[in-house]
Amino acid sequence: MNKVRFGIIGMGVQGSLYSRILTGQASPIPQPEGCELGAICSRTDKSAEAEALGGQWFRDWRSLLSSGCCDAVIITVPHFQHHEIAAAALQAGVHVLCEKPAGVRASDVQTMLAAAEKSDAKLGIFLQQRTIPLFAKIRSIVESGELGALRRSNWIINTYWRPDSYYASATWRGTWRGEGGGMLVNQLPHYLDLWLYLCGTPERVFALNREGAYRSIHVENDVTVLAQYPGGATGVFVACTHDPMGTDRLEMDFDGGKIIVEDSARATIHRFRRSENEWNRELSMGEMERYVKTDDHHDTERNDEGLPYGISHSRIMENFARHVRFGEPLIADGLAGLRQVELANAIALSGWTGEMVSCPCDPGRYNAELQKRMDAE
Amino acid sequence: MNKVRFGIIGMGVQGSLYSRILTGQASPIPQPEGCELGAICSRTDKSAEAEALGGQWFRDWRSLLSSGCCDAVIITVPHFQHHEIAAAALQAGVHVLCEKPAGVRASDVQTMLAAAEKSDAKLGIFLQQRTIPLFAKIRSIVESGELGALRRSNWIINTYWRPDSYYASATWRGTWRGEGGGMLVNQLPHYLDLWLYLCGTPERVFALNREGAYRSIHVENDVTVLAQYPGGATGVFVACTHDPMGTDRLEMDFDGGKIIVEDSARATIHRFRRSENEWNRELSMGEMERYVKTDDHHDTERNDEGLPYGISHSRIMENFARHVRFGEPLIADGLAGLRQVELANAIALSGWTGEMVSCPCDPGRYNAELQKRMDAE
Repeated sequence: MNKVRFGIIGMGVQGSLYSRILTGQASPIPQPEGCELGAICSRTDKSAEAEALGGQWFRDWRSLLSSGCCDAVIITVPHFQHHEIAAAALQAGVHVLCEKPAGVRASDVQTMLAAAEKSDAKLGIFLQQRTIPLFAKIRSIVESGELGALRRSNWIINTYWRPDSYYASATWRGTWRGEGGGMLVNQLPHYLDLWLYLCGTPERVFALNREGAYRSIHVENDVTVLAQYPGGATGVFVACTHDPMGTDRLEMDFDGGKIIVEDSARATIHRFRRSENEWNRELSMGEMERYVKTDDHHDTERNDEGLPYGISHSRIMENFARHVRFGEPLIADGLAGLRQVELANAIALSGWTGEMVSCPCDPGRYNAELQKRMDAE
Repeated sequence: MNKVRFGIIGMGVQGSLYSRILTGQASPIPQPEGCELGAICSRTDKSAEAEALGGQWFRDWRSLLSSGCCDAVIITVPHFQHHEIAAAALQAGVHVLCEKPAGVRASDVQTMLAAAEKSDAKLGIFLQQRTIPLFAKIRSIVESGELGALRRSNWIINTYWRPDSYYASATWRGTWRGEGGGMLVNQLPHYLDLWLYLCGTPERVFALNREGAYRSIHVENDVTVLAQYPGGATGVFVACTHDPMGTDRLEMDFDGGKIIVEDSARATIHRFRRSENEWNRELSMGEMERYVKTDDHHDTERNDEGLPYGISHSRIMENFARHVRFGEPLIADGLAGLRQVELANAIALSGWTGEMVSCPCDPGRYNAELQKRMDAE
């Protein structure tokens, strides 16, 4: 296969952008290597747009799948429909790159993964922020073990300001039936994924989620999560859509270092010259105080390799195409998508029940609680 | 009364410092106006030290109280004994300035307050960080209502690095029987008090407290608290004794502004030109994004009026003396001491039970849980 021919299923804001990225019409976002547009699929007639893009238009995704004009599909339809289309595509031997979140319910994502398991076709998830170089750098530092174990994570991510006019801009926004949730489903999947990617998967979470905080919506738009990792380390994750001067600040404490990331763009990486465990055994309080003041006890590296919006989308498509063509490892596979949704589900369930819940949580319980809210809407 | 004659009960690290502050021997800490040293009280013979300080020495605090040589006492004995001595002093008509925390158990502090209620003598608590100008400034801004209601508080206060050698330096340190707790009782009272002082009293708290995290102690030295305020606003409070590069960062979000304090020394106070509620009604996402980028939507004031260690102690004594002499309002009264202990108790109880608990919590339940740990030690 020379190039992977993508079909885009769902031509909303994201689908449109992806069609332009794939055809090199989204400058300055680079056209991803090894990728081309085969078709688009939308319920409204977009045959003219398809022609301009050099692809076919389908009204029905089943026809697109059976047409043979695409090796892979990008799925950007409403969240609740992801798994059905993905499973059908995988069953038909068509590769799937699925928009985040992989699904609303972890159980739906399991369906998607089961279909991938039975198919030779590949499954990837659009968790493109993993390609931002500073996050990739931090991930590699954490994975190398040079900083020792994580002791604490703390992320305030309040940069998603959304006014009532945004929520009113489409009937599905801010509703249980339309989206299956609020921030946890719409704005936060990338940051939940990065939190998992950099800090690991919590064993249990407790959350206070406010639904309709300062906004006329049913769903949660203010989230405060307390996480407990295996071994006892703790984490905090805070987000809302009503902070006009939104803070984005991640702090990670390790046995042997401390990492602070501001605005997802500037990382400060402190490496202690010795592990805190050794200092604890060897230094007095006074010695430590003098030691810290001299700045002699650590090395500091700065990294400001952020990425402008859109470039990471191009990179995730390129990686997916290389995975299909050459077997290059996926940056974000189906399991990553599942873990992210499991975390979102556990946070939502904890907020609804007021209990600390395991992560992943009981899918039956989450589904039942969500259904109650959908039914009552 | 020309000057208030203080007796210091308990001559450990703090008692010694206070005796030197009162006698003007703690330069550069100023001697507090309207205060003088009347006596010191310690179980070991400190008659020579008392003579050098120009006061009397008592082995027994009851003798000090009945001697008539002191108008007021500063109580710096182990936490568990605060209320008994304070109540006796107040009953004897001797004013009390009590070291923080006012007690381990809120029920003990209630005993102290009840004694104050029945006495003409005054009760104040050594919560001196309230005198730090930048915190006093923030408190006055919050109280004025100019920023509207609080939406979120977030404090990481990891600056209390304590090695095992510190905990081993006295048998009572890091034990339930000796101190009645860890950080919540020893290191954090000031910051819990400031959190209350600036952000208000939570209605409920949920906490994950780690006991003996990276240290050979029984008590909690790693605290993560999630708070819910009346009306639904949320708060996070994070602290530990094992971060050698301790972060101290407070963030407060309001309807009409945002305040960030770093290292308890540098405050950035943003005042929005209009309340977020109005922006929500009137601006689109795109307009807001442009608005934020121009920096035209808020005014920013900086305040770096911190205070070197010790000066705030002198100020709290001066305020207490003026309260006794002229009725000047107390900066930190008995009720402030009670609220701080109630919060610490609720956090501890939540950590022990794994439940979200009301604040104040059931004192009987807290006392029983604490007693279990003391008995098992």
